[in-house]
Amino acid sequence: MNERLTYRNAGVDVRRTNDALGRVREFIAQTNGAQVIGGIGDFGGLIRLAGYSRPVLVATTDGVGTKLELARLTNKHEVVGKDLVNHCVNDALAMGAEPLFFLDYFATGRLDPDVFERVVGAMAQACAAHQMSLLGGETAEMPGIYAEGIYDIAGFLVGVVEEEDLLRKTNVREGDHCFAFASSGLHTNGYTLARAIMARDAAAEGVDVTKWLNTPRSALAEDTAASALMQEHQSYLEPIKRLRKAAEVHAIAHITGGGWEGNIPRSLPDELGVVIDPTSFPRPRIFDFLADRGNVPDQERWDTWNMGIGLVAFVAQDDFDRARDAVPEAIRIGRVETARGERRVRFA
Amino acid sequence: MNERLTYRNAGVDVRRTNDALGRVREFIAQTNGAQVIGGIGDFGGLIRLAGYSRPVLVATTDGVGTKLELARLTNKHEVVGKDLVNHCVNDALAMGAEPLFFLDYFATGRLDPDVFERVVGAMAQACAAHQMSLLGGETAEMPGIYAEGIYDIAGFLVGVVEEEDLLRKTNVREGDHCFAFASSGLHTNGYTLARAIMARDAAAEGVDVTKWLNTPRSALAEDTAASALMQEHQSYLEPIKRLRKAAEVHAIAHITGGGWEGNIPRSLPDELGVVIDPTSFPRPRIFDFLADRGNVPDQERWDTWNMGIGLVAFVAQDDFDRARDAVPEAIRIGRVETARGERRVRFA
Repeated sequence: MNERLTYRNAGVDVRRTNDALGRVREFIAQTNGAQVIGGIGDFGGLIRLAGYSRPVLVATTDGVGTKLELARLTNKHEVVGKDLVNHCVNDALAMGAEPLFFLDYFATGRLDPDVFERVVGAMAQACAAHQMSLLGGETAEMPGIYAEGIYDIAGFLVGVVEEEDLLRKTNVREGDHCFAFASSGLHTNGYTLARAIMARDAAAEGVDVTKWLNTPRSALAEDTAASALMQEHQSYLEPIKRLRKAAEVHAIAHITGGGWEGNIPRSLPDELGVVIDPTSFPRPRIFDFLADRGNVPDQERWDTWNMGIGLVAFVAQDDFDRARDAVPEAIRIGRVETARGERRVRFA
Repeated sequence: MNERLTYRNAGVDVRRTNDALGRVREFIAQTNGAQVIGGIGDFGGLIRLAGYSRPVLVATTDGVGTKLELARLTNKHEVVGKDLVNHCVNDALAMGAEPLFFLDYFATGRLDPDVFERVVGAMAQACAAHQMSLLGGETAEMPGIYAEGIYDIAGFLVGVVEEEDLLRKTNVREGDHCFAFASSGLHTNGYTLARAIMARDAAAEGVDVTKWLNTPRSALAEDTAASALMQEHQSYLEPIKRLRKAAEVHAIAHITGGGWEGNIPRSLPDELGVVIDPTSFPRPRIFDFLADRGNVPDQERWDTWNMGIGLVAFVAQDDFDRARDAVPEAIRIGRVETARGERRVRFA
C-alpha cells in the first residue's frame, strides 16, 4: 500500500516555521513605529511615508557571504543577523539616505528554531537600534537545497532622503578630504579567502578548524581568530549624521566586497581618484595575521578586505576643521586627486 | 613554500560575477523609467516618489522554494525568475498596491553565467511587463554553502498605494462574493511535497526522476509532469486593476504556501470565514495526478496546494454584475460567512 505523503513527512513543517516566528514576533513588533500600519501575517508590510516634500527612496540588498560558515563554527549566530542590517544601513548611508524599513529572507534545509530566533532576533535588535522597522520577511524550508545545519540570509533595506540631500558622485572635487571610519575587522567581506587560509593553515598545524579558530595567537595579542573574525559589521549612521550636520559631505564609499579599488571609485566621477596614506590608520591585527599565514599578495589584500576602514566620506576642502571637530574618531587618510591610471586608489 | 592564496583561487571570482552582471545590464536598464535616478553600481538604487498625496509603501519578500530543484532538472531557469517577480506582485496586490520596484538576491556556490543570465534576465522581463523597475540586486558566490549547480533566489518588492485605496480585512462583510482567478498549476508552493511524490513514484516505476518528469501521462492528457510542474506563477495585476475600477473589492487573498486555510483567513477579520464550492472551478490535472500518486489526504491537498485558484478577491455583495462583467475570466466560487469553527475555509 502507498504510504500517505503529507507536507510534513516530505520535510516541510509549517507549524515549526510558525512556532519559530512566534518566538521573534515580540522583538519584531518593537521595531514598528507609528508610521507602520497593520500587523505580521499580512501579505505585505505597510508603512506611511509622510513629511517629505521630494522624497527619493533608496533600496539596497545584501547577504553576509560565507561569514555564515564561521557563525556556525563559532556558534555566534547573532553576529550575522546584526551584520546584515548594518551592512544595508551603510549602503543606504552611502547614497545619503537614512533607513526606513528592513525585510529579511531566511532559508534553510530544516529550520532550527533556536538558531532562527538568535539570527532574526538580532536583526530585530539592530533594526530597533536604527529606529527602523523590521517590516517583514520570508522564512523558507528547502530540504535538498541546503545541507543539514546550513542556512542563508539576505536583507533588503529601503531608506528615504529628500532629493536635495542625495549624495551624488558628481559633487566630489579634487582636493576633497578622505575622512575614514575604522572597521572592526573583515565586516562581511573576504571570508571565502579567510576560510581558505584557515583550512590550509589548520591542516599545516595538524588541527581541526575549530581548534585553529579557538587558539590564542601572539600575532593577535593573545586573542583568537574566532573572536577577531566574528566582530560585528559596524554601522556608521550615527557619526555620519553628526558629520553631515557640521560639514559638507560630497560622497561616501562603503568599503565592502572588492575592497578599496572595488568601492572607492563607485563614489567618484570617472576622472577622479584618491591618494591614501596606508600608515595613517591602525589596522586590526586580523588582517596581517591572515595575510601572513596565507602569503596573500599585498594588492590582493586591499582588493579583497577593507584593511581597517569601513567607510570613507569625501569632505569639502574648506571643511576640514568642522569635520574633525564633529567626528574626532574619524581619521583623514588622504585626499581626492585626478585619476592617474586604470587604478583609482593610489597608496603613497 | 606557502602557495599564495588569492580571492580567486579561494573560489570567488569577482570578474566572473561582473561578466555575468554585464550580460543582464541591458535588460535591467530597460526596466528603469523616468522616476529612477542614477545607475547600476551605486550602493543603492534610487527612485523618486512623486504624485502621491498620502502614500503608503507596501513591501514584500519571497522565494520560490524547491521549485528551484525542478528548474534545474528540467532546465527551465527562466520560469523561476518570472515566478519570483509575479509572486511578489500578487502579494503587493493583495494589500491594494501596485508595484514600484523590485530587487533580487541570487546566491550560489560557483556562478554559472548562463544560468544567471537566464534567471535574472527573466526577472527583468517580468519587471518590465509590470512597468516596474529592477532597481538592484545582490549576487553572492558562496562556495561551501551551496553545492555544485545549486542556487537560491529571493525577491523583494516595494509597491505604493494611496492610503484610502489600501485593502483592509476589516472591510470584508458577510455575504461578500469570492471571485477567484485560475492558477496555472502549483505556482511556487508545495514543491517539496510534489518532489517527494516524484521521488517515490519514480522509484516505484524503476526510472530516474528525469525520465519520470518527461514521460507523457494519460492522467495529464498526454502532457508531461515536467511541463505541468514548470508553468509560471501567474500575475493578476491586470485583471485586478480592471476589477477594482468596476467593483468594490474589500480584500484579496493570494493563495500560496499553506494553501487555502493558510491564506484566506489572512484577508478576513477573525469572525468571518468562507464557504467554497470546490466543484465550481476547473482544477489543472497536475493536482489530481500528484494527489493520486502520492495518496495525499484530501485536506492536506487544500492545505498545501492552491488546487487551481491563484487569487481570491472579496467583492461587495451588490457588485456581482459589475464584477462579472469586468473580469469574465474570474469565477464566483463561494461567499463570506460567519466563521463556524477553527477552520475558516469550509468546502460545501
